[in-house]
Amino acid sequence: MSNSSDDILGRVADTVASRRGGDPERSYVARLLHKGEDAILKKIGEEATETIMAAKDGDRAHIVAETADLWFHTLVMLTHYGLSHADVLAELARREGLSGLEEKARRTPSAAAPKAPESASATPAAIAPKEGS
Amino acid sequence: MSNSSDDILGRVADTVASRRGGDPERSYVARLLHKGEDAILKKIGEEATETIMAAKDGDRAHIVAETADLWFHTLVMLTHYGLSHADVLAELARREGLSGLEEKARRTPSAAAPKAPESASATPAAIAPKEGS
Amino acid sequence: MSNSSDDILGRVADTVASRRGGDPERSYVARLLHKGEDAILKKIGEEATETIMAAKDGDRAHIVAETADLWFHTLVMLTHYGLSHADVLAELARREGLSGLEEKARRTPSAAAPKAPESASATPAAIAPKEGS
Amino acid sequence: MSNSSDDILGRVADTVASRRGGDPERSYVARLLHKGEDAILKKIGEEATETIMAAKDGDRAHIVAETADLWFHTLVMLTHYGLSHADVLAELARREGLSGLEEKARRTPSAAAPKAPESASATPAAIAPKEGS
Repeated sequence: MSNSSDDILGRVADTVASRRGGDPERSYVARLLHKGEDAILKKIGEEATETIMAAKDGDRAHIVAETADLWFHTLVMLTHYGLSHADVLAELARREGLSGLEEKARRTPSAAAPKAPESASATPAAIAPKEGS
Repeated sequence: MSNSSDDILGRVADTVASRRGGDPERSYVARLLHKGEDAILKKIGEEATETIMAAKDGDRAHIVAETADLWFHTLVMLTHYGLSHADVLAELARREGLSGLEEKARRTPSAAAPKAPESASATPAAIAPKEGS
Repeated sequence: MSNSSDDILGRVADTVASRRGGDPERSYVARLLHKGEDAILKKIGEEATETIMAAKDGDRAHIVAETADLWFHTLVMLTHYGLSHADVLAELARREGLSGLEEKARRTPSAAAPKAPESASATPAAIAPKEGS
Repeated sequence: MSNSSDDILGRVADTVASRRGGDPERSYVARLLHKGEDAILKKIGEEATETIMAAKDGDRAHIVAETADLWFHTLVMLTHYGLSHADVLAELARREGLSGLEEKARRTPSAAAPKAPESASATPAAIAPKEGS
């Protein structure tokens, strides 16, 4: 993954964040942020639905476009709550880090916890214990 | 946005892709990819729902964790369809590019189309004309 | 529509409501109600997703089964909030009633508003003005 | 549950079905049916999302209105696939029936299967084994 193509997410996130307080008449993002929580979350639901439908159609170009829409609107949502894509990436990195450690432990013969090795990293449930926390 | 934090998405995507064909017993991702389309898409719906619920709670740590889950599972979905995060980033870059041009045009006094300038870039509808395409 | 088949919804709703405070060990519904709001709403998101996927597959038996699951879990949700299917039916009747009046008005030559006649009843937006209310 | 209020679902379903092939200009339902599958399923996703958001707000009138919207659009979807609310009610009745039998069996001392008694009826998973079917 080259840096240039990787920076895209940050660049889009910056653009989205810069629309905060902007003119709702001129910018779709400013308008959506102005409308507030429910309008933004409704878009998350819509784009997730459209991503699923595109996937069921097996239409790859459409899957990419809808996933872009979904990611884009999660960036709008994060901005609404004063969060950023960096927070989400840090969370993913934290899980990856755990994963790295776990993978290593798994390879070590004396590993105490042979169960749920890679899962402990890649399993969202294991990484972010939602129910119990 | 530092490169290091941006590289995370690529690294997670690589990890997910590497699980393809892996042992379903040892890896959550391998298991999910093995189960196939419906199991993966069901997770997209679930994580979108959980993201929305966390947002309604205004629980910022939870919003970050659920968005990470949502992005993570879109990466699994992309892998299932032989796509990658790079495809989605390229789509976002394409839209940003259009946006940049439009933004520039807007700043130019002779700009012919003062209406919907930035929207043309930031509006998902305008960027990815779904209905008509 | 015969009464007997129509009474089903009320009977299922009564069964669901009767599980409230029941033994979570013995009853799925009691367990779900015991878990509370997020567990119940998560099911709404899941069943809606599965209904959409079944529909995209064009699998009619599956569509019926998933829609039954979706309706069933909305009954659980209504119970959780101290509401019942009768409240939803009353809302639908209210809209139908408006619709009936509007349909009638439309047939009258002197009807002042030829636009959006039936829509006024059947259009959810017109019936339940969500944004503005 | 009185018959009159119960008949509402059938009446609304009949109204929806009667819009099939109707003038898209005059009727919201005719318009939605005319647009077809993806437009209808998108509404299912939207209304489910809005139901969840209303529930998180704890706004009971809003929950009722959104659930009515959700049920209404499932009726439109059923119509699109040549199905009716009666099919869904029959499925619910079948499950209730199983439930009744199971409940009875549970109360009988000689019941062979003390495990998952009521669940067998009320558990959607047990009723409609989706994964395996």
